[in-house]
Parts: sequence; C-alpha cells; structure tokens
Amino acid sequence: MKKRVLVDMDGVLANVYLQFIHFEYLESGKKLTLEEATGPDEVKAFPNGRKHVNMPGFFRTVPVMKGAVEAIKYLNEKYELYIVSAAMEFPNSLKDKYEWLEEHFPFLDWHQFVFCGSKQVICGDFMIDDHPKNLDYFDGQRIIFSQLHNAGKDNGYTRMDGWDEIYKIL
Amino acid sequence: MKKRVLVDMDGVLANVYLQFIHFEYLESGKKLTLEEATGPDEVKAFPNGRKHVNMPGFFRTVPVMKGAVEAIKYLNEKYELYIVSAAMEFPNSLKDKYEWLEEHFPFLDWHQFVFCGSKQVICGDFMIDDHPKNLDYFDGQRIIFSQLHNAGKDNGYTRMDGWDEIYKIL
Repeated sequence: MKKRVLVDMDGVLANVYLQFIHFEYLESGKKLTLEEATGPDEVKAFPNGRKHVNMPGFFRTVPVMKGAVEAIKYLNEKYELYIVSAAMEFPNSLKDKYEWLEEHFPFLDWHQFVFCGSKQVICGDFMIDDHPKNLDYFDGQRIIFSQLHNAGKDNGYTRMDGWDEIYKIL
Repeated sequence: MKKRVLVDMDGVLANVYLQFIHFEYLESGKKLTLEEATGPDEVKAFPNGRKHVNMPGFFRTVPVMKGAVEAIKYLNEKYELYIVSAAMEFPNSLKDKYEWLEEHFPFLDWHQFVFCGSKQVICGDFMIDDHPKNLDYFDGQRIIFSQLHNAGKDNGYTRMDGWDEIYKIL
C-alpha cells in the first residue's frame, strides 16, 4: 500500500508572496522585495494583506511555486497524495483554490483535495508545510518547506529548500 | 482530552432530500414524496438532481435536519467536534456550505469545518454519516444516520434513527 503524503498550498505549491507583492503594488504603488515579503513580519510587510487575501481572485491567479508541478507529478505516482489547505479562514478562496488546482495540476482529481480549518484532523505518513503550527500536530514525518518566516525554526522537521530537493527526501 | 466526533452534512445535518423535492418541483412541476426521494434509486427519483446540486444556492438554502442544531450544540460541548463534508465534488457548494454552517450553527467556528473529496484522510474517534462508503474506511466507531438509501445496510455500524437518538449513543 502506498504511503500517504499531504502537501500544503500557500507558500508551498502557491507562491503567495509574489501575489502579495503584486496586490500591494496595485493597491499602494509600494514595491516590496521578496525578502521583505517572506520575512517574519508579514503584518508589517503587508498592511493591506488581510484585505487582499479576502478578495475573490487573489488565490485564483497566484503564481505556481518553481518546480512544484513536476514534483507533484512525481509524488502523485509514487504516493497516495492529498493537497491539504487550511483554506477555511478565507471562504472566498475556496472555489478559487479548487479551480487553481484544476488548472495547474490537471493530473490530480478532486478526491485528492482537502480544504480545512485545522489540519489536526488530517492523518497521513508525511506532511509538507511551511508552517510549524500545522506540522507540530502531525503524527507522521514532518517536512518543512523553507520560507524566511520559518528560518531557524526546528522541531524535528526534515527541511526542504525548494521543490528540487523532494527527490532526495521522498 | 476530549474524543473527536466527525459529523457529515448532506443527509445528516442538511435535509438535502427536501431540497431535491423543492428543486424538482420548481424545474418540472413533479411532486415527489419523501419516500421516493430518500429511496435507494436516487438517479431515477431525481432526473435533474445532478444539475440541481451544481446550481449555486442549492446547498445555501437547504433545510436543517430536525433536531440537528440542539444535537450539535450538545456534541460541541462534550466532544472535539468537526463537520466533515465530501463537498469537493460540487465546487459551487463550497462557499454555500460554509455560509450555511455559519447561519445555522453560529456556535461553531471555521476551524471545525472540513470540506474534502474523500473522507479516508480524516481521523477521529466517532464518525456520523449516512453513506457506508464514508464509514467503511473509518478506523473509529462508525455511526450510520438512517436514510432509506442505507436501510438494511450493516457493517458493524451503530445505527441512529434521527438526531433525537444521539443522546443515548454519545
């Protein structure tokens, strides 16, 4: 039986930081660097971020993370794969996220999508996520996807610096 | 630590059968009885059912199952409660279902909502569902919510005939 891998969306499959920069520029003309955008102080970097993530379309047009499509194809053949997003905080994102997955990962099907409020209720063998708060409740092997906001954080995670590294880990 | 209870929406919290009858009447003028509607041959009973469940609004205005609000209040105090719906088949239903839960169960919060394609990935101690296909993959105690379509089906389930019976079971 294939082992089960759970993969996060925002900050892992979806480059929400580029999208924050884009929406902030459209809103205020302010150009943030990726370093400012992915740093620990998200609230300071994106004064309008909370508004933007609630706008229909924010998650529909977010760029795909580099190397994610090939990596997910690979994982989907080797493992029982689920895409698990804590999307419930932003109800406008639900259909956007569904359509985004269908567009960019057409080899997956909707049986493999989970949109939840808390990931505590999801079980599997491996979880790939950029947020310690999601990984820390998980019973299986925890793989942290590096972003500046999780730099230096360690709680027994396996760390991956981008999708190119997945082939060494799983 | 509280035990975790997973509760299904359609056919358990949401009386989708009354809604099917209502939408069929609006569509064709045909008046189905509840017995026809909840019987095993859903496809025959609802020739337009597939179209209706994909219409925005179908799940937003569905009637609440009798006794469900009081029962969920009770479960929410005694257990770690999650509402788990295999909603992903109908992407138009996602926001409708979120808003429906907010309207009728305002004492719950979005951390407790899970919309998935397959319930195989959700773990807990008790699952309340009307579909054997969801219960059969579940490791915990399986509670079947009686509907005509599951009459006589048994695979070690605890059976409940309506929400009034929950107080004897959990």
